[in-house]
Amino acid sequence: MSRRSVPVPELFLAAGGGDRGALARLLSLVERGGEEAREVSRLSYPISGKGYTVGLTGAPGAGKSTLTSAVIGLLRSLGEEVAVLAIDPSSPFTGGAILGDRVRMQDHATDPGVFIRSMATRGHLGGLSLATPEAVRLLDAIGRHWILVETVGVGQVEVEIAGKADTTVVVVNPGWGDSVQANKAGLMEIADVFVINKADRKGWEETRRDLEQMLELSDLAHEAWRPPIIPVVATEKRGVPELWATVQAHREFIEASGELVRRREFRLREELREIVARRLEQRARELATGDRWNELQAAVFDRTLDPWAAADEMLRTVGA
Amino acid sequence: MSRRSVPVPELFLAAGGGDRGALARLLSLVERGGEEAREVSRLSYPISGKGYTVGLTGAPGAGKSTLTSAVIGLLRSLGEEVAVLAIDPSSPFTGGAILGDRVRMQDHATDPGVFIRSMATRGHLGGLSLATPEAVRLLDAIGRHWILVETVGVGQVEVEIAGKADTTVVVVNPGWGDSVQANKAGLMEIADVFVINKADRKGWEETRRDLEQMLELSDLAHEAWRPPIIPVVATEKRGVPELWATVQAHREFIEASGELVRRREFRLREELREIVARRLEQRARELATGDRWNELQAAVFDRTLDPWAAADEMLRTVGA
Repeated sequence: MSRRSVPVPELFLAAGGGDRGALARLLSLVERGGEEAREVSRLSYPISGKGYTVGLTGAPGAGKSTLTSAVIGLLRSLGEEVAVLAIDPSSPFTGGAILGDRVRMQDHATDPGVFIRSMATRGHLGGLSLATPEAVRLLDAIGRHWILVETVGVGQVEVEIAGKADTTVVVVNPGWGDSVQANKAGLMEIADVFVINKADRKGWEETRRDLEQMLELSDLAHEAWRPPIIPVVATEKRGVPELWATVQAHREFIEASGELVRRREFRLREELREIVARRLEQRARELATGDRWNELQAAVFDRTLDPWAAADEMLRTVGA
Repeated sequence: MSRRSVPVPELFLAAGGGDRGALARLLSLVERGGEEAREVSRLSYPISGKGYTVGLTGAPGAGKSTLTSAVIGLLRSLGEEVAVLAIDPSSPFTGGAILGDRVRMQDHATDPGVFIRSMATRGHLGGLSLATPEAVRLLDAIGRHWILVETVGVGQVEVEIAGKADTTVVVVNPGWGDSVQANKAGLMEIADVFVINKADRKGWEETRRDLEQMLELSDLAHEAWRPPIIPVVATEKRGVPELWATVQAHREFIEASGELVRRREFRLREELREIVARRLEQRARELATGDRWNELQAAVFDRTLDPWAAADEMLRTVGA
């Protein structure tokens, strides 16, 4: 019997019993998508929902993984188990930082209470934005109740994924505030907690003032939860207990206010829409083989028809 | 009459006559998507195709914009006009580099032969991956025949956009080769030319050897076009003429071999599929309001139905 033919429910049971190899294989199935991923989903979904996800995101080099590692250490000292998903944008350009960080996380590699996995998509319909919540639900279902999702905060998809956690921590560095003129609104939208990492460096207080000012201008300051700003020196674990206390406070706040339920329902609604869209896309691809389709394509190539007009015409042929 | 009510064809004519304000407004319409973007597309599409796009991508800090600026300088010295689209991932995390770079590009801000625009999406259906080719076609249609598309090479969408140029230049730095263990295949797929920028720094020769080795392993070495590796010091414009000669050589190669036509047709086919998918998604969203949809959503929230099963059920209700 080849390794592949172990039935999904058997892997699921083994993973639930603490078999890390089985868990790793299930996550590979999730990454790959397809029928076996659906089966994982069918098993996980009904019994998930007890876990809590914390997103950590920031620019390359901001020290996210050192921070993640420090948070893992803290959680372990509290007797908590933890799983980490590191989202790899399948890009060569994440640079050396990721490998370095992975190595740093190896501090916890032999600890059975810690499970670390980097995620990529291997053909999953819908890419990381659909594979990630499925991976989270699997970890949740088998009893990993703290799930950290670390993403590189560059790129549309990756920032979105970070923003889909129950609590999202945005990691910045001193000096950041001076130079960034890019879309601050995007950051404001996803941050529940700000960390100024490397707060032993010059300029961190200016960065805090800058963030405070942005919060004032964004009206978020007047919402019920105002994102706190926590100075941290992750390499020395300074500020990490304060960060975790803040994450806990945010969790209690959104649990008590009903915001957690609203967020999760919103995310599920979005996920459903995305699944529907991906399915329709698949359907369109299947249908995109007929003569009429080829004619329309030829007209686009000849520039006698623009792509949007061709698409409208194609949709008429599939009846949508 | 408000500014908005200037008809699109009038803006189009004005942009064609060199009115930069009109061009900027048309690009805003493209970013925004919607009916006016369609109108821009209808005007641009039939008369586009003469322009040539060069993608430049690399990690934050790799020196892409300094390089872009140097390339602009070279093109201007040759009497060529040039347009630059800088793809902004709408993220706060692109860091200070982008602003710095934009400022650096201001060298060319007063030159009427240079048009620089940073792109973001403002609700365009399909995001940057659909807005960018439309913006390129607009620039092409009004006579900008060299179009540089600069993206931050981190993130799924951004790397894809860079890979959709006629010639794609991947910018790396010395030392990069030692540390990167991330998906090198992704890079190999999109690179037509490699630039080792900051080649006055230690280690650039190792980086070149590393790239050579990757090329060997990837079989690309045995294809008709083997991506050349050009050492450059963009801040001093060293190596820039060699880079540009290589881009020209690649252009001539893909024009002569028929590869350019194949690439463009492939891209149009992908774009068509994406437009169709986005339209179907929109259609699904419109339909996602009925009672049955609400019931299915409620079942998902209650965890009695998993999202994929619910999506299948929803698709049955829309007949797809």
